[in-house]
Amino acid sequence: MPQNIVVIGAVALGPKAACRFKRLCPEDNVIMIDQSDRISYGGCGIPYYVSGEVNTLEELQMTPYHTIRDAEFFRVNKDVKVLARTKVESIDRQAKKVLIRDLTTGETAELPYDKLVLAMGSAPNRPPFEGIDLEGVHTCTTLDDAQAIREAVAAGSVSGAVVVGGGFIGLEVAVSLADMWGIKTSVVEIADQILPGFLSGNMVKIATHDLRKNDVDVFCGEKVIRIEGENGKVARVVTDKRTIDAELVVMAAGIRPNTEIARAAGIELNERGAIIVNDRMQTSDPDIYAGGDCVTVPNLVTGKPGFFPLGSMANRQGRVIGTNLAGGDARFPGGVGTWAVKLFEQNAAGAGLTIESALREGFDAVNVHVEGFDRAHFYPEHTVMALDLVVERPTRRVLGIQGTSSLGDALVARINAVAPLLQNKPKLEDISNLEVAYSPPFASAMDIINTVANVAENVLEGRNHTLDPDEFAVMWQNRESGSCTFVDTRLASNAESLVEKYPGQWLSIPLEEMEQRLDEIPEDKTVVLICNTGLRSFESQLIMNRHGRKSLSVQGGMASVTKQGNEI
Amino acid sequence: MPQNIVVIGAVALGPKAACRFKRLCPEDNVIMIDQSDRISYGGCGIPYYVSGEVNTLEELQMTPYHTIRDAEFFRVNKDVKVLARTKVESIDRQAKKVLIRDLTTGETAELPYDKLVLAMGSAPNRPPFEGIDLEGVHTCTTLDDAQAIREAVAAGSVSGAVVVGGGFIGLEVAVSLADMWGIKTSVVEIADQILPGFLSGNMVKIATHDLRKNDVDVFCGEKVIRIEGENGKVARVVTDKRTIDAELVVMAAGIRPNTEIARAAGIELNERGAIIVNDRMQTSDPDIYAGGDCVTVPNLVTGKPGFFPLGSMANRQGRVIGTNLAGGDARFPGGVGTWAVKLFEQNAAGAGLTIESALREGFDAVNVHVEGFDRAHFYPEHTVMALDLVVERPTRRVLGIQGTSSLGDALVARINAVAPLLQNKPKLEDISNLEVAYSPPFASAMDIINTVANVAENVLEGRNHTLDPDEFAVMWQNRESGSCTFVDTRLASNAESLVEKYPGQWLSIPLEEMEQRLDEIPEDKTVVLICNTGLRSFESQLIMNRHGRKSLSVQGGMASVTKQGNEI
Repeated sequence: MPQNIVVIGAVALGPKAACRFKRLCPEDNVIMIDQSDRISYGGCGIPYYVSGEVNTLEELQMTPYHTIRDAEFFRVNKDVKVLARTKVESIDRQAKKVLIRDLTTGETAELPYDKLVLAMGSAPNRPPFEGIDLEGVHTCTTLDDAQAIREAVAAGSVSGAVVVGGGFIGLEVAVSLADMWGIKTSVVEIADQILPGFLSGNMVKIATHDLRKNDVDVFCGEKVIRIEGENGKVARVVTDKRTIDAELVVMAAGIRPNTEIARAAGIELNERGAIIVNDRMQTSDPDIYAGGDCVTVPNLVTGKPGFFPLGSMANRQGRVIGTNLAGGDARFPGGVGTWAVKLFEQNAAGAGLTIESALREGFDAVNVHVEGFDRAHFYPEHTVMALDLVVERPTRRVLGIQGTSSLGDALVARINAVAPLLQNKPKLEDISNLEVAYSPPFASAMDIINTVANVAENVLEGRNHTLDPDEFAVMWQNRESGSCTFVDTRLASNAESLVEKYPGQWLSIPLEEMEQRLDEIPEDKTVVLICNTGLRSFESQLIMNRHGRKSLSVQGGMASVTKQGNEI
Repeated sequence: MPQNIVVIGAVALGPKAACRFKRLCPEDNVIMIDQSDRISYGGCGIPYYVSGEVNTLEELQMTPYHTIRDAEFFRVNKDVKVLARTKVESIDRQAKKVLIRDLTTGETAELPYDKLVLAMGSAPNRPPFEGIDLEGVHTCTTLDDAQAIREAVAAGSVSGAVVVGGGFIGLEVAVSLADMWGIKTSVVEIADQILPGFLSGNMVKIATHDLRKNDVDVFCGEKVIRIEGENGKVARVVTDKRTIDAELVVMAAGIRPNTEIARAAGIELNERGAIIVNDRMQTSDPDIYAGGDCVTVPNLVTGKPGFFPLGSMANRQGRVIGTNLAGGDARFPGGVGTWAVKLFEQNAAGAGLTIESALREGFDAVNVHVEGFDRAHFYPEHTVMALDLVVERPTRRVLGIQGTSSLGDALVARINAVAPLLQNKPKLEDISNLEVAYSPPFASAMDIINTVANVAENVLEGRNHTLDPDEFAVMWQNRESGSCTFVDTRLASNAESLVEKYPGQWLSIPLEEMEQRLDEIPEDKTVVLICNTGLRSFESQLIMNRHGRKSLSVQGGMASVTKQGNEI
């Protein structure tokens, strides 16, 4: 007798699980239920629809082969029945049926199931600000949201916008509004940094500077108090520190799992309301599977429950559920949190823990920051990439990696090489020996991914005494105190302009001349060595070491100082 | 008492080992010996110097911070002594000294060592063809070679060139000569494919077509018999199949380890003449280390001895040797063979075994070929990438991956994600679940790297009945036999021109209409389904399956057919 599979939710995981199952069990019945008739869309594409890079909403609903994935598509091509504009009111686990309500007619009905899939996804947080319901305040999750925002900006009536939340969606939307529509955009983030939990300190500064340089205001550690309107339309956003004029507000202040019906049915949730599943994506009820934004899966770096609301996770989990519905034994062990985001000139990407999250998790961790070429330095089209590596000090275990680069694919090529290893507790030497594809147009013989591990080892062993670019910035700001000597180890021609600008404060001693000119460096001051990326200053430090002289080398050098927007 | 370290060879591994050691043990003595005074250069950059993309030879000898790495550089910056234009005649392991000869004066001397590093690299094969010593016949390993080739082409006297050998260097030089100098270039390769052992069949066809389309002739399975000259200069190359006019011949027919002095000293070599080392890079004499092109290290996929003559391997091994010379315990477990090469429009990259090498190694293996977008299909700047995955059938172990793409960084981002896993015997499901950095500008929610594993699973389980593009090409060539029906499952507008060109032979049944129009497909013929990349044809096959009809879906679809240069 054919099985009845009911899938609640038809955006990402639901359709994947349904179609995978039908491929394996073409004789069985699958019904997919969604509150909207806009189903099976690429929600991650919404910022690119807002920007206009994606022309029509239909493109987000299309297969790669240009067919709209609507109810008819699923019926004809997949033999999956879709109940659109239908809400699941409750799940009766004893009777194994769901109570549904047609949102158009209001009629209710019962639907029996043998196996149930919970794919309800997540909903954007809408904090109860005064003014949250004004016209012009949008969330950014559904195609309806996308359409509303695009219509507002296309109408030309928006000259200022506020994005509440500096996570992925918030930043992507901010870039879209500012870059493609020329709208003065501000990001207000309650945490003290953008991309909290994803990006380490050095990279945060690079990313933030990239946004600011491109006329996006970034206000971190700042709380929205209320939204003020005029004639029912949003007019300004009031934070605890300022008032920002805006005709458009996009709420991107996090999401929460859509798990009310699961909770009501007695399915086990964690304290944050996410459904707990095993590695077969089964809930506490073995006939009920769940995945995507509404579940928690293990964070394979910390071993604790993780929350990875990403379309890529949903798709892979959906396939696992489809296989298991058909009696297979597919596993989804968890995730390490691999991500990427495109800003203006810079792209950022990472995997695993940031230094801040590693310390918070109780690891005795250190962060190493390097700037280096993304391919052979003699190959004409090389670019300087920045990488941060987070390492547990006593074990030398690599906990995470983040980077920024103007070339996103090249950056992702390094992040992807480390990400799949993170769950196996790689050691620094595994990254030192990492075998990435080499040829001068694609990598260096000693690639930056190997270098960042080598530098980390030198730092851990006390062979490389470093200074973060922002520590350097503070010391430079306090230069009048006279406690530091700043030595530029680049070629004299590179140092020239700063030597002229800061006579007596900025010394030029190129690496090549360090040995001869050591006595020009005062012995009673902290010596700060700087160069373009940190290589010359490290080499200079080694020469000083050989003569019993101590120094600090600025990690990432002028490249990082400049990218972080520090004044010098 | 300070140790004396002697390093034989100063190109890649030698300097790396020497400098790493000096950082750890600044009080000890290091002497580095080389037959040339052109030392520590990026040999992998030679093709880009030949092309002119790298302007001067000095750029290949520079650090990333623009200092020439000559003997003086090593003395001043690294406190490493270099004996250039000096040959090591022999090693006396009992007395722990090497006999050296100054190549300028002819004087000999003895040099004692506590530890010795063998970094002699490799030499290009020069088969004893008639005419091999004619003017205009060059190898392509040293900076002297590079200079000679560039001078020849820059003089404008070369209108035809033959590259003997279709490996990495051969192809890179062929591209340089043809692309940047407009020289009619032919590659003659004795094996039946270019990049033998590195690239699987489907990818070979794509890469070969890219070369031919750009006016590089590729003659595989063809043997050079002799080189003919006029007035002492090369005039043509005679193979077993043709005569090719050429004023320039580049010998890139493989390399052999430079291990004569090691052999004479009784150090253990393998049957191919490479030095055997343990995972600390020690030879059979524990006071003698070796690495780079002159050693064999384990192939971590096969478990057998491997040979990876790559600058990237040499650099990483050099660091391990430097650490161990200083009393450390660094390990270099081996390699899986990760590589990349830039051609014309296409780049190729891979790791692990090809299908051909897997079968030769005795694996019951299968190759799966997919074409797919390298980022979200709705993101405007997507490109179609091709991937081949080699899988052991009974265990589902992934043995290797290769790909081609017009965007090299995007391709390498996928190869790098799989390469570091290969040594751990990953299963298909590890690649299905592989967590690569996702965001629409960088990847798909179900990324092509996950897709290739999913397709492989479907093929292995008999759920996806496929045809390689070249199998399709053969069937299409024999279409007059009438044994096959060719069904184009793309939108009618895409199929139109072929339907007109081949009336009655090329059927257009778009996926959307497959269910209704099934009876148009004859039941007594082999049904071949094709689309753009293989997705629509697979979906069409599923519909046919549901109606009990069999079919074959062309892997990679028209994308592969076109890239492989098949006529249709």
